[in-house]
Amino acid sequence: MQNTSSFEKNISFLKSGIEKALNNIPLDNTPDYLYNPVQYVIKGKGKRLRPILVHLAGHSYSADPEDLMKTSLAIELLHNFTLVHDDIMDNANFRHGQESVHKKWDVSTAILTGDAIFVLSQLLLTGLPSIITQRFNEVSLNICEGQGMDKQFENDDSIIMGQYLIMIGKKTGALLGLCAELGGLLSGVNKENAHSLFKFGLNLGLAFQIQDDLLDVFGDKSSMGKNPGGDIYKNKKTALTILAKENNSQKWSEFIRKHSKLSEYQSYFKKNNLKVEVEKVVKHYINKADSALASAPEADKQYLQNFTSMVLKRKF
Amino acid sequence: MQNTSSFEKNISFLKSGIEKALNNIPLDNTPDYLYNPVQYVIKGKGKRLRPILVHLAGHSYSADPEDLMKTSLAIELLHNFTLVHDDIMDNANFRHGQESVHKKWDVSTAILTGDAIFVLSQLLLTGLPSIITQRFNEVSLNICEGQGMDKQFENDDSIIMGQYLIMIGKKTGALLGLCAELGGLLSGVNKENAHSLFKFGLNLGLAFQIQDDLLDVFGDKSSMGKNPGGDIYKNKKTALTILAKENNSQKWSEFIRKHSKLSEYQSYFKKNNLKVEVEKVVKHYINKADSALASAPEADKQYLQNFTSMVLKRKF
Repeated sequence: MQNTSSFEKNISFLKSGIEKALNNIPLDNTPDYLYNPVQYVIKGKGKRLRPILVHLAGHSYSADPEDLMKTSLAIELLHNFTLVHDDIMDNANFRHGQESVHKKWDVSTAILTGDAIFVLSQLLLTGLPSIITQRFNEVSLNICEGQGMDKQFENDDSIIMGQYLIMIGKKTGALLGLCAELGGLLSGVNKENAHSLFKFGLNLGLAFQIQDDLLDVFGDKSSMGKNPGGDIYKNKKTALTILAKENNSQKWSEFIRKHSKLSEYQSYFKKNNLKVEVEKVVKHYINKADSALASAPEADKQYLQNFTSMVLKRKF
Repeated sequence: MQNTSSFEKNISFLKSGIEKALNNIPLDNTPDYLYNPVQYVIKGKGKRLRPILVHLAGHSYSADPEDLMKTSLAIELLHNFTLVHDDIMDNANFRHGQESVHKKWDVSTAILTGDAIFVLSQLLLTGLPSIITQRFNEVSLNICEGQGMDKQFENDDSIIMGQYLIMIGKKTGALLGLCAELGGLLSGVNKENAHSLFKFGLNLGLAFQIQDDLLDVFGDKSSMGKNPGGDIYKNKKTALTILAKENNSQKWSEFIRKHSKLSEYQSYFKKNNLKVEVEKVVKHYINKADSALASAPEADKQYLQNFTSMVLKRKF
């Protein structure tokens, strides 16, 4: 078994390889209107979580390294495309510590930039097996649906946990699922194993997103990379707020009418056992991710378990 | 040779087949936030010029009808996706006689709707030969570049005719080129003939767009389907205004400072020979489109020549 520190070295090696390849994607220079912001996004910072997962899932089955790299970059560009458009829709002015495209330029530029980055992701997949592009686009549609649900939920106070889980499964989980699945498919795993890899990534994504909801209230800026309480102050639905309403709708309504400090939210969630409940949900999805790996080869399993652990410890 | 009226019957038969197939694209219903506007766009009106061209170019080579239909629908959706996003960027509130998506809903909805329609176009191409998806995405990138140039040119008064032609070639011409090229490729024509078909569509697109610039000033509402003078009043660059500036920059600047009536523009363009010059440019591209067909089989040539004639007579 590979120890953690040598695994972390592997990860940073992979990450720098991915960033080099991202910088080497052949791009035109004109028109500036389009390519300046495209370069700004592609060469900006990122955790590269998703392309790393593609490589890890493909590794032990020894897929063709070039195909693996192209697929991993396509997924990173797909991710970047969704961020550029989501930032417009969410009025988010910063991303990875730099201004978002619609803030630095304008909305029209950001729409077109996202579009072009998505086209570039499709071009990276040229020549790869049809199942790769099919799954890539099926999950792209899931992501659009997830974002649509997220927007629809903004003005709907009747949302229950089940709906929330479907939404984050589509918006966040499916893409991590795709990473693991495509890594496997490129290595020639059978359909069943490919689906297990998808489930691994999907459940990891769910655990990650719900943990994010916890960290928004109970984390600190250094571990989050953003100010705590952001979702609460923006009145966004999270696992904590949805559960609070589900458990005691009247009490919760009274609470939010009277309180606004983050520390008050913290004690409400603790006192009413909601923190513990949501932690259990995270654990539930970690276990599901783990079970999905049961049929993976031993070496692969180690990699993906180490990856899970790093992701959930926010070591990216 | 097929006579015009039987050709027009063929076209309306094709059109109704395409509309039926568009209505039968399998779509989920939820979330409403996403699928209501997606359905609104896909089931809205359209001339279906582009999918018709795919069928005509594929016809005489006898391509697989199902592949031809899928490809033609994918191109129609690609076109719709660009319209939804362009309408946001251009603040255009109506399209084909109905409210544009961002007007009927809002900008966020329209961004996401365009994205999903583009993903649906990719999914329609699943399983088709790699050259089809490659060319589809190369041209999608051209369209983004053309739109980027168009936005960039809005605030640049130094634009000359050569730059304008590159812009409309990418924004409008390349997609018509793609229609003819993919129809040919699906029918197994060789690379050279496929490229000739692309050039046919590209040049037809250029002729069509420049003719549009003429009609904006000299056409009437019934033939245009929109109010004349729209581009002039919005201060958009057109072949006429660019040529006017190129020919006599000072005289043109003085004219636009003093005049604003459409009839005054009409006489300026006529008196200074600009109308005739631009008509020559249209004729030039019609001839180029015609020459590109030289190597096409006779039956195909007839179809595409009849199509050209219908398009330029605005019989759609």
